[in-house]
Amino acid sequence: MSDADRFMTEAIALARENVRRGGRPFGAVLVMDGEVVAHGVNGVVETHDPTSHAELIAVRAAAIKRHSPILKGATMYASGHPCPMCLAAMRLAGITDIYYAYSNEDGAPFGLTSAPLYADLQKPLAEQQMNFAYRPVRPKGEEDIYDLWRKMQEG
Amino acid sequence: MSDADRFMTEAIALARENVRRGGRPFGAVLVMDGEVVAHGVNGVVETHDPTSHAELIAVRAAAIKRHSPILKGATMYASGHPCPMCLAAMRLAGITDIYYAYSNEDGAPFGLTSAPLYADLQKPLAEQQMNFAYRPVRPKGEEDIYDLWRKMQEG
Repeated sequence: MSDADRFMTEAIALARENVRRGGRPFGAVLVMDGEVVAHGVNGVVETHDPTSHAELIAVRAAAIKRHSPILKGATMYASGHPCPMCLAAMRLAGITDIYYAYSNEDGAPFGLTSAPLYADLQKPLAEQQMNFAYRPVRPKGEEDIYDLWRKMQEG
Repeated sequence: MSDADRFMTEAIALARENVRRGGRPFGAVLVMDGEVVAHGVNGVVETHDPTSHAELIAVRAAAIKRHSPILKGATMYASGHPCPMCLAAMRLAGITDIYYAYSNEDGAPFGLTSAPLYADLQKPLAEQQMNFAYRPVRPKGEEDIYDLWRKMQEG
């Protein structure tokens, strides 16, 4: 079995254990330099947290462990097709190698697909099903937060 | 001052306090039924976690507090334009009313913009700057994870 298949088998095994504990069928394994640095399973049922997705948890755990928000060169093995939140989380961390074992098409008959959310989020923001608005409040008598941040950066 | 401006002023005040503590200039306040149910600030510098964004933290905190991953009817007041990860997190939670005080254009001169990531993520997946591949591993001798999940759902 190739290393890639072995890591994917591990992600699927995590998903299976999670289902047996009453969770959703998603697991993920994050690999750097040929070794597993972190993993995650979907914890939405248990925690009620809608952001408790396998890949996001693995990214968080790896970053905290390595003391770096950037995980360039890491490879994600996810049992299911990553949702838009997890994909963006991986990209924020500089992760560009992503494999998944179950596609949105595989998951659709089970209601396990993020395809509708992808379709909506790929539209221009103004056309999406939401009210997303610029409200440029600038509290009087207070320093602008971005100016303040720049000053702090410059020390 | 309108309620909306008051909540936004609070989000900006959280961002300002966060900068004074050495963090990034982002704060968010989540409101339900006219009251703040949760808030968050960017914790990337302190925790190294690249997913530690103000809005995502507010969504998580509200969902855990209310024992529900769905926060329909909630309104997010974010100091900065939400990034794609946080936007998707809000949509996963059913949040469709989102206001921000600083646009990506406001933030660009400070390097505080998620516009490049939005531009990339809005392309078809195959055209994005990453290797995103289907690897349909199906471990032999083990029950399919989605079939198992359906069985568990049916009790």
